[in-house]
Amino acid sequence: MTLLVALTGWHVESWVERFARLLPERRVVHLGEEYDPGEIVYAVSWKHPHGIFRRLPNLKAIFSLGAGVDHILEDPDLPDVPILRVVDNDLTNRMSEYVVLHALAHLRQFRRYEAQQRERLWEDDRYQPAAADVRVGVMGLGVLGQDAARKLAVMGFDVAGWSRTPKTIAGLITYAGDDGLGPFLARTDILVVLLPLTEDTRGIIDHALLSGLARDGRLGGPVLINAGRGGLQRQADILRALDEGVLAAASLDVFESEPLPVDSPLWAHPRVVVTPHNAAMSDPDAVGRLIVRQIRRHEDGGAFDHVVDRSRGY
Amino acid sequence: MTLLVALTGWHVESWVERFARLLPERRVVHLGEEYDPGEIVYAVSWKHPHGIFRRLPNLKAIFSLGAGVDHILEDPDLPDVPILRVVDNDLTNRMSEYVVLHALAHLRQFRRYEAQQRERLWEDDRYQPAAADVRVGVMGLGVLGQDAARKLAVMGFDVAGWSRTPKTIAGLITYAGDDGLGPFLARTDILVVLLPLTEDTRGIIDHALLSGLARDGRLGGPVLINAGRGGLQRQADILRALDEGVLAAASLDVFESEPLPVDSPLWAHPRVVVTPHNAAMSDPDAVGRLIVRQIRRHEDGGAFDHVVDRSRGY
Ligand SMILES: NC(=O)c1ccc[n+]([C@@H]2O[C@H](COP(=O)([O-])OP(=O)(O)OC[C@H]3O[C@@H](n4cnc5c(N)ncnc54)[C@H](OP(=O)(O)O)[C@@H]3O)[C@@H](O)[C@H]2O)c1
Ligand SMILES: NC(=O)c1ccc[n+]([C@@H]2O[C@H](COP(=O)([O-])OP(=O)(O)OC[C@H]3O[C@@H](n4cnc5c(N)ncnc54)[C@H](OP(=O)(O)O)[C@@H]3O)[C@@H](O)[C@H]2O)c1
Repeated sequence: MTLLVALTGWHVESWVERFARLLPERRVVHLGEEYDPGEIVYAVSWKHPHGIFRRLPNLKAIFSLGAGVDHILEDPDLPDVPILRVVDNDLTNRMSEYVVLHALAHLRQFRRYEAQQRERLWEDDRYQPAAADVRVGVMGLGVLGQDAARKLAVMGFDVAGWSRTPKTIAGLITYAGDDGLGPFLARTDILVVLLPLTEDTRGIIDHALLSGLARDGRLGGPVLINAGRGGLQRQADILRALDEGVLAAASLDVFESEPLPVDSPLWAHPRVVVTPHNAAMSDPDAVGRLIVRQIRRHEDGGAFDHVVDRSRGY
Repeated sequence: MTLLVALTGWHVESWVERFARLLPERRVVHLGEEYDPGEIVYAVSWKHPHGIFRRLPNLKAIFSLGAGVDHILEDPDLPDVPILRVVDNDLTNRMSEYVVLHALAHLRQFRRYEAQQRERLWEDDRYQPAAADVRVGVMGLGVLGQDAARKLAVMGFDVAGWSRTPKTIAGLITYAGDDGLGPFLARTDILVVLLPLTEDTRGIIDHALLSGLARDGRLGGPVLINAGRGGLQRQADILRALDEGVLAAASLDVFESEPLPVDSPLWAHPRVVVTPHNAAMSDPDAVGRLIVRQIRRHEDGGAFDHVVDRSRGY
């Protein structure tokens, strides 16, 4: 009745140790160890090597260590077991910190005043729009998108959201599906992307989409904030849109390839803020406890929470 | 029945024009014009020349063009007429934008990631505290302080406030008066100053006060955000506290002398963000309408709103 910790690029030892501590009754192994495929009943994954789960005949569930499961579903050779993702208040709050911080930083021209501070000279102040004059559009109204939208509205922004299926959310203008996308973009000055990466959403942030954003806004042009996944965006299109004036500025936490290659023009672009995919770092202990709680509940005959719908891809 | 526009350092003509438009039935004059002292019944002030209001025998009220009235009350030769200040939702929202932006920027180490962006290299991420791990203390629980405190709490911060008189505010830990100050500071990681400048508050942000802030916080040291008035702070003490490690960082919108002199070390301090006293610029048209509404109501026999208590100084 063993738990397999199947990570690449992360602190394997600390996760093995954490699960061993939280599940003292169970053996916990990692990919570099000997184990009998038949003994593995649960697996946790962060970018696991493709095909490994298929070889585990008694596997009951795969847990993602993050909120996204794109890194699991891109394995073409997955067994038919439930895949579970992290939904955690702490992670949700951190994502909203990031989104509200970057929306306010663009609204209040944080970078422009920093440049003036370096020059020791205040330029004549242009009239600043208030949050109420600025329309934010949140793409993805799941756990993260809804929390961010609510907090942006508390700060005074004029907020709308877009999702796959129609939604009614108090205080929020909502759009859905392909038909809703055009009108949603047309009323958006700051686009916040909190979509999962799926077959339908890959590359969605392209030049055509950016060209559909509001042209009549109060920020001197539309702003993009992507804290979803790098695969959602076409970086060449973002750079072109910035240079053409189709886009005024961007905050990007995620990239087509991570870490962002050192020769990417995004690093030095004066109107781009980049961060190292840390918009919402989860607390490892909280994530460990969450997964262990799911395992214990399932062993007691309970149902899993936060099971991914594999046909939708999220 | 004339309105006197008594401004120094502001756009006199645009204010005269605005009031003339909003009060077509009245004469509107400025300080550079000829007027009969007896004809002036209302005056608006932004840093008016001392003594001028005393010479107006029929003056009924003085309106501040801002939320603060320190610039009026420092005139030692004021007549005994009501002094009214601006209370306006748009101004309040803008102040909270500023406070939440700067609190989040310090929490999420905006400047540190900017430096890494310039180097095109992500350092290993230190563990980031969440807003819930950080205690914010708001000095001044008036119109602005209460709104900022509420929005900081929505963002997840652990918020307390301090005021002159005891208060009960849902969801907020409150302290009051001299006795409350020590315990309030001792549980504060981010100090937000939204006090009025009065005889009691002048110079309150000094080395002793900064030394009383929490030493056991999660931000690597306490942070100061002053968007109240420059006269509240001792800049030499702030610089000393920064250099001694008593203070980790500061965002300052206001200064002992404004604009901040070009030789101030605050401009170039790596852990100081300065802004040009624009935390909450009021919309001039909204302020104009507010004052005109007060004048009309008073003429109809109604009472004034937002009258300053001259014995308290705010
Ligand atoms: N940068 C970071 O540090 C970080 C951290 C955590 C998570 N993330 C990313 O954030 C993503 C969102 O997380 P979450 O917990 O909010 O996910 P979630 O609860 O599953 O919500 C996903 C939302 O996206 C919408 N959506 C999915 N496909 C769509 C499509 N084709 N067209 C329109 N809308 C679509 C869904 O619509 P319906 O409501 O109609 O189903 C839903 O509203 C994660 O998948 C992950 O990639 C990033
Ligand atoms: N930087 C900018 O752009 C900008 C813009 C607008 C305003 N401001 C500044 O912000 C200040 C606050 O505005 P507001 O509208 O919130 O004022 P307010 O409604 O009059 O509130 C003042 C608050 O400060 C407290 N206070 C006053 N003296 C105190 C003392 N000696 N000890 C402890 N607490 C004291 C009051 O306590 P009680 O509740 O017990 O009376 C009250 O809670 C203004 O005076 C102005 O200087 C700055």
